Amino acid sequence: MKRSNLLITAIAFTALLTTGCMENKPENDKTEVQAIFPKGELGPGENFTGNAWNTPLVANDSTYNTVIGNVYFEPGARSNWHTHPAGQILIITSGVGFHQIKGQPKQTIRKGDVIKCPPNVEHWHGASPDTGLQQLYIIPNTEKGIVQWLKPVTAEEYNK
Amino acid sequence: MKRSNLLITAIAFTALLTTGCMENKPENDKTEVQAIFPKGELGPGENFTGNAWNTPLVANDSTYNTVIGNVYFEPGARSNWHTHPAGQILIITSGVGFHQIKGQPKQTIRKGDVIKCPPNVEHWHGASPDTGLQQLYIIPNTEKGIVQWLKPVTAEEYNK
Repeated sequence: MKRSNLLITAIAFTALLTTGCMENKPENDKTEVQAIFPKGELGPGENFTGNAWNTPLVANDSTYNTVIGNVYFEPGARSNWHTHPAGQILIITSGVGFHQIKGQPKQTIRKGDVIKCPPNVEHWHGASPDTGLQQLYIIPNTEKGIVQWLKPVTAEEYNK
Repeated sequence: MKRSNLLITAIAFTALLTTGCMENKPENDKTEVQAIFPKGELGPGENFTGNAWNTPLVANDSTYNTVIGNVYFEPGARSNWHTHPAGQILIITSGVGFHQIKGQPKQTIRKGDVIKCPPNVEHWHGASPDTGLQQLYIIPNTEKGIVQWLKPVTAEEYNK
């Protein structure tokens, strides 16, 4: 093998390895890839803007009085405004998104954050424009009710 | 550069890249590395065998009546037997472990599993011998109480 050919072979081999290596590196949005739960079912268009995928984890019953599930919000997707008669707890497991309580500024929420929304308080939650959001929702004391859906979050409200 | 030197340089460069690449590849137990929450505080020796790290996420109050936290069990670590007056829900977010309800066979639990233990039923949970376990615990209806700790899980019970 000529010296130039050997060099080309080495560079090609290096390029191949580097490409293989890059496939293992974190990308910008791995919220879907790293998911703990199945992607779930698409949330109904009347309650969500964009694609929000719901996986129920704990169904309501009179023993635990608790409803739990996972939602994956695709980038830009968000819930309508809504209330919970006994409040709601959100646990963010991956990605970046927003949570807003009526009358307060929108807050950015990230992996590891825990959010509480008190009973009968209007709020919405969803993904950031560029990165999806994985979040667990926990609805306690379901003997008081689960959710009341309200109006969509407008583009102006989402971007403010 | 001589042909042999060029070859050695190419091999050394390749080895360097491969080493860098391997650091990005999944290893056998990434339960600690992939954690969503901080490692937390070491659980007290009187309630746990081995190292179990607890991160409280939701403190008890009279609005949500719910206690939530994350536990990372190192390989081989487990809780004592214990009961919850209003039951407990476990959500496994990473790794492999065990859950056992008194009088039933030990069950293997993995990432994505959801476990329910009814009120006042004895149970224990922990990691497998070789792989750690990350798990969220949700204790509902805390107006009835939170936890009653009982005896350690013996090596015979753990390995059965």
